[in-house]
Amino acid sequence: MTQNLNGTSIIGFSRGSANEGTQQGVNPASGEALEPIYATPLSAEFDKALELAKCAFPVYSALSGSKRAEFLNSIADKLDASVDLFAERGPLETGLPEARMRGETARTSGQLRMFANLITEGSWVTARIEHGMPDRQPIPKPDLRSMLRPLGPVAVFCASNFPLAFSVAGGDTAAALAAGCPVVVKAHRSHPGMAELVGNCILEAAVETGMPEGVFSLLYGGQDIGRALVEHPVIQAVGFTGSRAGGTALMRAAAARPQPIPVYAEMSSINPVVMLPGALADGGESLAEGFFGSLTLGVGQFCTNPGLLFLPEDGADAFLAKLSELVGAAAGASMLNAGTCQAYGERLEALGAISGVEALAAAPKTNGKGAPAVFTVSLKRFLEEPGLQEECFGPATLIVRAPVGELAAAFESLEGQLTGTVFGTPEELAAQADLVANLQAKVGRLIFNGFPTGVEVCHSMVHGGPYPATSDGRSTSVGTLAIERFCRHVAWQGFPEEGLPEALKEGNPLGIWRMVDGSQSQ
Amino acid sequence: MTQNLNGTSIIGFSRGSANEGTQQGVNPASGEALEPIYATPLSAEFDKALELAKCAFPVYSALSGSKRAEFLNSIADKLDASVDLFAERGPLETGLPEARMRGETARTSGQLRMFANLITEGSWVTARIEHGMPDRQPIPKPDLRSMLRPLGPVAVFCASNFPLAFSVAGGDTAAALAAGCPVVVKAHRSHPGMAELVGNCILEAAVETGMPEGVFSLLYGGQDIGRALVEHPVIQAVGFTGSRAGGTALMRAAAARPQPIPVYAEMSSINPVVMLPGALADGGESLAEGFFGSLTLGVGQFCTNPGLLFLPEDGADAFLAKLSELVGAAAGASMLNAGTCQAYGERLEALGAISGVEALAAAPKTNGKGAPAVFTVSLKRFLEEPGLQEECFGPATLIVRAPVGELAAAFESLEGQLTGTVFGTPEELAAQADLVANLQAKVGRLIFNGFPTGVEVCHSMVHGGPYPATSDGRSTSVGTLAIERFCRHVAWQGFPEEGLPEALKEGNPLGIWRMVDGSQSQ
Repeated sequence: MTQNLNGTSIIGFSRGSANEGTQQGVNPASGEALEPIYATPLSAEFDKALELAKCAFPVYSALSGSKRAEFLNSIADKLDASVDLFAERGPLETGLPEARMRGETARTSGQLRMFANLITEGSWVTARIEHGMPDRQPIPKPDLRSMLRPLGPVAVFCASNFPLAFSVAGGDTAAALAAGCPVVVKAHRSHPGMAELVGNCILEAAVETGMPEGVFSLLYGGQDIGRALVEHPVIQAVGFTGSRAGGTALMRAAAARPQPIPVYAEMSSINPVVMLPGALADGGESLAEGFFGSLTLGVGQFCTNPGLLFLPEDGADAFLAKLSELVGAAAGASMLNAGTCQAYGERLEALGAISGVEALAAAPKTNGKGAPAVFTVSLKRFLEEPGLQEECFGPATLIVRAPVGELAAAFESLEGQLTGTVFGTPEELAAQADLVANLQAKVGRLIFNGFPTGVEVCHSMVHGGPYPATSDGRSTSVGTLAIERFCRHVAWQGFPEEGLPEALKEGNPLGIWRMVDGSQSQ
Repeated sequence: MTQNLNGTSIIGFSRGSANEGTQQGVNPASGEALEPIYATPLSAEFDKALELAKCAFPVYSALSGSKRAEFLNSIADKLDASVDLFAERGPLETGLPEARMRGETARTSGQLRMFANLITEGSWVTARIEHGMPDRQPIPKPDLRSMLRPLGPVAVFCASNFPLAFSVAGGDTAAALAAGCPVVVKAHRSHPGMAELVGNCILEAAVETGMPEGVFSLLYGGQDIGRALVEHPVIQAVGFTGSRAGGTALMRAAAARPQPIPVYAEMSSINPVVMLPGALADGGESLAEGFFGSLTLGVGQFCTNPGLLFLPEDGADAFLAKLSELVGAAAGASMLNAGTCQAYGERLEALGAISGVEALAAAPKTNGKGAPAVFTVSLKRFLEEPGLQEECFGPATLIVRAPVGELAAAFESLEGQLTGTVFGTPEELAAQADLVANLQAKVGRLIFNGFPTGVEVCHSMVHGGPYPATSDGRSTSVGTLAIERFCRHVAWQGFPEEGLPEALKEGNPLGIWRMVDGSQSQ
C-alpha cells in the first residue's frame, strides 16, 4: 500500500499551499527524517479555516443526530479501510509497533461509532420539559423546556502518545463532531504523516456525507499556530492531551481572551497504586508481573501509567524481588521521539539525585531508548518533597514504603490524579473504606485489583480528574459523557410546538428519554 | 417581632468575636445607618471556618441524600418561620418593599425544598453501570460504574439585589449543600443584617439535624476577605452573582491559584428583546405596558432586566407613544444602595452623551432615586459602538430601530446574554427561524411572547449564558440542573458490591433511574 502524502494543511475542503515547510516527522528508532516536510498554513489560510468553521457551525449544529452520525460512521469506515497505511506510517513516526497501530485504529473507529450510536438514539441531550400552568397563583408558570446545545467551533490538539485515539480523529474530535461542533485540529509535530492520513479520511467523509465545508480543518505548525487557534474568537472550546506545561499555557491563553473559553487539557498524572498486605500475601510474584506489564506497556508512555506505588514495609519481599528481576532484565525500547526520550533520561537522573531516593533496579542504559526504572523512598521523605509527585513520562515508578495506617497523610498530600488503584482482599477494602474515600477525593477513576493502564471506551468511563490531572475535573475525555464538554444547556420558554427543536416537541418525535414535569419518560 | 442581631460572623457552630466592626447596613431611602456594626472575622477565625469546612466535607458528602434533605428542609422551615423578621429588616437594608421580602422568602424556601426533593429521590447523580465481560477478546471488559460526586467546600458570594434568593441561603448555597459540599458564605455589605438572620436559620438547622460542624459558615468583610476565600486551598468552587468587574476579578484569582478552580459568576446581561411587526400590530399599547412593567420591576435591579429592545422602523408608533407616556409619568424609587444609585445615574449620563443616542422620555430626576429611562439609537450607531452593550443596572433600556432583515448583523454583534426574547406571531417565528437560531447561540434562555424578568425555579430553567452573562455558560444558577455545577463524575472499576456507593450497587437499593449497560432503567 502506498502512502500518498502531500505535506499541507487541510483548509475546509481544500489543501493549504505548499509553502516553505517547517515540520517533518523523524523515525525515533533510526533518527531518519521522514518525507514530506509539512508546510505551516499561510496567514490567509489560517483565517479561512476559522471563517469556514464559523460558517459551518449553524448549518452543522442544525443537522439531525442521524445525519451527523452518518458523517462519524463514514469516518470510522475510512479509518478501518486505511489501517494498513497507519500500520506502515505509524511505527515510522512514533516507534510504536504495528500491532499497536492496528489496535488503536479499531479503538478510534469504535469510538466514532459509539458517538454515532449515541446521537442517533438522541437521549444524550438531556431534554427537560415542564408544562406551563397559566392559572397558577400568584403568577402563571410558563412552559419551559431545556436541552444541551453545542458550544461552537472547537480546537483540538493532537497528543504525541496516541497518533490515532487522541489525535486528529480521536476522542475530542469525535465528541465535538457528535455534539454538533466543527473542529479545527492542530497536528502534533511528532506524527504529521499520520495526521494527514487521518485528516484525509475525515475530509473525504465530510464531502461524501454532505457536511458543510469548514466542519473540519487540519493545521500544521508550531506553538504560535496553537496559541493563535486558542485565541481566535471563533473557537469556543479547546481539547488538549499533553504536558502540564503545554496544558497550563493553553489554560492561561484561554482565560486571557476577551471572551474566556473552557479548556479541557489532560495533563499529568502519576496514578497512585496501593497494595494492601492481603494482596501481597495472595501472590506477590504475579502482582509484580502484572505491575511490570502495566508500567512498561507502550514504553510507559500512557497518561495512566502507574508512577507511584505505596507498599507496606513488611510482606513485600516476593513482590520486590520479582519486580527487581523483571526490571533488571528489561531492554530499553524506542520512545515516541527524541525529546521525550531525553526528558525521560533527565527526569530519571533528577529523581535518583533526590536525597532518600534509591534505585531498586535499573535496566542497562540503552542509548536513546527508554528502559524501565524503579525507585524507592520512605513515606517521610515523600511527604517532605512535593517534587516527588512530578510526572516522569516513561516506564518509571516510585515505590513509597508506608504502613497502611499512615497512608491517610500520603493521600491527603496527593495532587489530583486520573486514577487511583487499590489492591487487596474485599475484607481489606471494607476495612479501609475511609482511606478509599480519601483516594476518591483525588481521582477520576478508582480501580480495585486491576491496573490503571487500559481505558475502556464506554458510557461509564471517567478519564479525567482534579487538577493537575486535567484542567477541568468535571469532565472526561473518554466515553460518551465526553460529549457534554462541548455543550451547554439552553432553555426555550413559551415557544409554540413548531418553534421548538425536535427533541423538545410535545409528541417526542425522536422517541428519546426526557424528563417531563419531573419524571423520566420515553 | 424583635430582631436580635449580634454583628458577628458565624464560624461553624460558634460566633466570631465582636472585634472592631467594619460593615454596617444603610437605609438607602433615608441614609440612616443601621445597627449593629458587623465585625470582620479575625484571621484565626477565618482559618477556622475553612478548616472546619475541610473536615466537614468527607462526613457531609458521605451522608445519604435523605439525610442532607432533612437539613435543607429544616432551613426552609426556619426561613418561612422568620419571614416577619425578613419583612422588617429587608426593606430597611435594601429599599425593596415588604411584599418582595415575603415573596422572596417563599421562593428561597421553595428552592431549598426543591433540592431536598431532588436528593431524596436521588436520580440526579446520573449513575451509570456497565457490567464486565471477563471473556471478551482480545482483552476482558472491566466492570465500570460512574456517578456525580461533590467537588468539596464551596465559597458563595451574596448578591446585592436578592437578599434571600441569591444570598446566604440562595440558589448556590442550596445547590452546593444538596450536592454534598460545605458552604462558606461571604455576606454582602448592603444587607448584613439579612445575612445574619438567614445565617442563624442555617446554623440552627445544621445543629438540629445533626450536620457536621463546618457544613456552613458566614463571613463578613470586604474584598480582601472575598479574595482570601477564593484563594484558599480548601475552597473547590465559587458561586457569585454581581458585577462584571467583581466576577472577572474572582475568575482571575481562581485561575491564578496553584490549583485553579471553577468560578460560576453571573455577571452582566442586557437581555435583548425583539419585537416583530406582527406583535406590534396586534397591540402596541399593551405590549408597551408589559415592557414597562418588566423594565421597572424591582427598580430594574434584575439580571434579566430588558436593557435592549430591537424595534422595527415602522409600525411602532403606538408602542413608543405609550412607553414614552409611562416613562414620563413614572416616579423614581429607592435603589438598593447609594453606590448602585450613583452608578445608575452616571451610566445614564454616559449613555445620553454617546453620539446618536437620544432620550425617548425620561422621568423627572428624583434626587437619589432610580427613575426609568429609555433611549433610542440607530442600528448603524449600535453596530459602531460596542459600549452601547454595556449593562446599565437599573430601569433603563436602549431601543435600536432596525428592519427585521438587518437584525442578523445586530445579533452577531451581541455579547453573551442570560435571555433573548422574541415577540411576534407564530408565523413570524417560523419565518424568522434562522434569526432565532442566531439569538439562541448568544443566550441561555429563549423566550417567546413573554418578558425576561421572572425566573421560574424548576427542572428545565437555564439561568446562565455565554460570557459575559456568566463566567461559565455551561451551567445554570437557577433550577435543579444547578446541582451539577458543584459536582464531577467519578468512576469505580472492578469494585465488589460492598465497596460501591449505594447509588451504584447492583440491586439499586435507592430505586433511582440509572443507565445500565446503555439503557435507562429504574
